[in-house]
Amino acid sequence: MSTTLLIDDIGELTTHDESLAPETGGRLRDAAVIVEGDRIAWVGPAADAPAADERFDAAGRALLPGWVDSHTHMVFGGDRTAEFEARMAGQSYAAGGINVTVQATRAASDAQLGANLERLVSEARRGGTTTLETKTGYGLDVENEVRSARIAAEHADAVTFLGAHLVPAGADPAEYLDLVCGPMLDAVAPLVSAVDVFCETGAFDGAASARVLEAAAAKGLATRVHGNQLEHGPGARLAVEHGALSVDHLAFLDDADVEALAGSWSGGRRGTVATVLPACDLSTRMPLAPARRLVDSGAVVAIASNCNPGTSYTNSMNFCVATAVLQMRLTVQEAVRAATLGGAIALGMHEDGWTSPSGKVHGAVGVIRPGACADLQLLDAPSVTHLAYRPGMPLTAAVWRGGKRVV
Amino acid sequence: MSTTLLIDDIGELTTHDESLAPETGGRLRDAAVIVEGDRIAWVGPAADAPAADERFDAAGRALLPGWVDSHTHMVFGGDRTAEFEARMAGQSYAAGGINVTVQATRAASDAQLGANLERLVSEARRGGTTTLETKTGYGLDVENEVRSARIAAEHADAVTFLGAHLVPAGADPAEYLDLVCGPMLDAVAPLVSAVDVFCETGAFDGAASARVLEAAAAKGLATRVHGNQLEHGPGARLAVEHGALSVDHLAFLDDADVEALAGSWSGGRRGTVATVLPACDLSTRMPLAPARRLVDSGAVVAIASNCNPGTSYTNSMNFCVATAVLQMRLTVQEAVRAATLGGAIALGMHEDGWTSPSGKVHGAVGVIRPGACADLQLLDAPSVTHLAYRPGMPLTAAVWRGGKRVV
Repeated sequence: MSTTLLIDDIGELTTHDESLAPETGGRLRDAAVIVEGDRIAWVGPAADAPAADERFDAAGRALLPGWVDSHTHMVFGGDRTAEFEARMAGQSYAAGGINVTVQATRAASDAQLGANLERLVSEARRGGTTTLETKTGYGLDVENEVRSARIAAEHADAVTFLGAHLVPAGADPAEYLDLVCGPMLDAVAPLVSAVDVFCETGAFDGAASARVLEAAAAKGLATRVHGNQLEHGPGARLAVEHGALSVDHLAFLDDADVEALAGSWSGGRRGTVATVLPACDLSTRMPLAPARRLVDSGAVVAIASNCNPGTSYTNSMNFCVATAVLQMRLTVQEAVRAATLGGAIALGMHEDGWTSPSGKVHGAVGVIRPGACADLQLLDAPSVTHLAYRPGMPLTAAVWRGGKRVV
Repeated sequence: MSTTLLIDDIGELTTHDESLAPETGGRLRDAAVIVEGDRIAWVGPAADAPAADERFDAAGRALLPGWVDSHTHMVFGGDRTAEFEARMAGQSYAAGGINVTVQATRAASDAQLGANLERLVSEARRGGTTTLETKTGYGLDVENEVRSARIAAEHADAVTFLGAHLVPAGADPAEYLDLVCGPMLDAVAPLVSAVDVFCETGAFDGAASARVLEAAAAKGLATRVHGNQLEHGPGARLAVEHGALSVDHLAFLDDADVEALAGSWSGGRRGTVATVLPACDLSTRMPLAPARRLVDSGAVVAIASNCNPGTSYTNSMNFCVATAVLQMRLTVQEAVRAATLGGAIALGMHEDGWTSPSGKVHGAVGVIRPGACADLQLLDAPSVTHLAYRPGMPLTAAVWRGGKRVV
C-alpha cells in the first residue's frame, strides 16, 4: 500500500475538471486533494476529506496542476549571450544563429550536455514545471542527433526529434533532407515519441516539411511543426493536414489558418494544438502570437517556454503565463489552462492510460481529478490570478511530481 | 575599525563609474570590490585586490549596484485581486479603483499596515532592491496620511507625501486641495522628503497640480509628479517647470515634453528624471512609455516598479528591467543604469554626502566606486545581460545593503 497524503486547506483549487465544479469550470474553493502513490486519489471540499497518512497544510493558498512545458530545446552546448546582447542593441534576428549552437553542441562531451540539461530541468522543476518536452536539433548529423535524443531521454518527460531544424552549414539541402527522412530518422526513432520540422523560409519549405511529416508517419511517430514564426507560411495548415499533435510559434496567421486550427477539433476528432511561445516572441522582439483570436475561434491553445539558448533562454512558465494574460489578452483561467492541460494535450498525455517509452502506464497530466497523475504546484498566493497580478514575483511555494515533493 | 570584506572573482562588474573603466562605460571584467563598514572602499582588477578580513567568492558571476526602486505605493490595506481579474477579462481601468484601497487602508490597524509594508519590503530586498521609496496616498485625510507617512518611514528609505493622489470619494475638490496644500502638508512635512501629485484627468488638473508643487516648494520639500499616464496632459511639462526631481509614468508624451525633459539637464543643471514604470504599463494593458525615445533625446531615465495593489502589484525590478529591454527597446546597459543610478538620481541620492531624515550622512547610491554606499547585488549569471536574456528566471544570488548581507 502506498502512503496517502492529504493536501488540506486549499484556498483555490484549479482542476480543469468541470464535473468537480460545473459552475466554475472546475475551480473549487476551500478544497482538499488526496494523493496516493503517483496518482490523485480524491478531490473535494476540505470539510469532506477522508483521513490520510500524512497532511500538508496549504494554508489557504492556490493549488493547480504542475506546468506542462510542451516545447523546449534544452540539449545544447554553449550559450548565445553576445548574440542576444547585440540583438537588444538593434541587430535583427537571423535563423543562422542556430548554427552557432550546433557547433558548440557537437564540441561538447556527453557529460557536459547532460549536466547542462540537468541544470535546466532542475530550474524548470523549481519553477513549477512537472512535465517537460525537449527536442534534439543542435546535432544535425546522425551521431549527434542520436546522442542528443539519448541524453534528452535521461532527463525529459518527452523527446522530439528535430533533425529538420535547419540545413547545417555547408550541407546540400536535398541531401540533408534525404538524411533526415532516412538514416537519421531510422537511428533516432527508437529514442523519441515525435518528429518536428521547422517550416520557415531559411529552414524547410512546405514541400520539404511535408516529406519530414510523411516519413515520421511512416515510422508510426507523432508529429509537430514549428510554423509561422517569422512570417506567414504554410506551417499551420500543413500541421493540420498531416494531423500533427501541435504547431508551435504562430505569430503570423491568416483567417484560414485560424479556422483550420479550430476546425481540426470538430466532430470530436483529435486536432492540432496551437502552441504559443510568449517568451520567444518577446525575446526576438517579434509580434506576439494571436492567442486571444485562437481561443476565441475555438482552437485548443498551449503555452510553452521554447527554452533554448538563442531565442528564448527561459523556462519560466510563470513568466509565459503572465505575458499571455497581460499582453496576449487571455484571461488568467485561459492562460493557466493552456500552460497545463493545453500542454498535456499537445503531448498526448491528457487522458489516463498514456504510456511512456519505458512502457509505464500513466495517469492524465495537466488536470487534477481522481486517477490523474499527482503533478501539482502550490502558489505562495491565494489565487492563480496572482500569476499575472504579481508578474515577476517568485510565487512557487511547493511542487509535487508523480506524488513526490520536489520543491 | 570596521571589518573589511573582499568580494572576489567578479566575472562582470557594473559600476556606472566611467573613470574606473573608460572604454566600457564603467563595466569591468575579472574584478574585485572591497567593502568596509557600509561603504565601498576599493574597486579594481581582482588580481590587484588588497587583503581583507573576509572573502566572498563571486565565482565569475555578475555584480552590480542594488536596485533603486524610486516609485512605489506600499502603505495600503487589502488587495484588488478581483478588480485585476475583471480587468484581464476585458473591463477597462478606472482610476476610481484607488478609492477601494483608501477604504481598506483607513480600516486597517497600524500593525496591519506595518506588517503588509514589511512583507513587501522584504520581498523587494530578496529581489535585489536595496533602496526603496514609498508614498502615502491611500489615507487622504490628515490622520491617515500622517499615519501612512510614519509607518512608511519605519521601513522605506525615502518617503513621499501623495495626499494629492485623488480627491477622495465624497469630498469637494476645491476644499480637498486646500486641505492637501495646507493642514495636511503641514502635518506630514516633518515625516517626508518629497511631495507628489497625480496630474491626470480624474485626479488633479494642471492648475491644481501646480498649487501642490508650489506649496511643497514653500515648505522646502522636493517634488515629484505622476503624469501622462492615461492620456497626454500637462504633467511632464509642469514637473520640469517646477524643478521636480522626477516625473513618472509618461506613456503619452509629445515632442515638446521629451525636449523639455532632456533640456532640463542642459548646462549642467539638476533636471527632472523621466521615470518609466514598465510593470504598470503592462498591468493596465496601456501603451509602454517611450523609454527608447527618452534615452535617445538625452533625458535621464529611471525605471521603477510602481508597486501598488491596483495597477502594478509587483516589486520585481528584474521583471521591470527585462521588460524595458525586450519591449521598450533599451539596451541591457541602459536599463540596468536606469534601474540603479537613474533611480538614485530621481531620489537625490546619487552623490556622496546625501543626508537621510535621521541626519545620517550617506555615500552615493546606484553606483559602485570608493566612497559609495555598499549596496550590491550578485546575479546567478555571468552578465547583467541575463536579466533580459533569461526573463522570469530567479537570478538574485546575494544582496548586500549598507555592507550587510541581507540575501
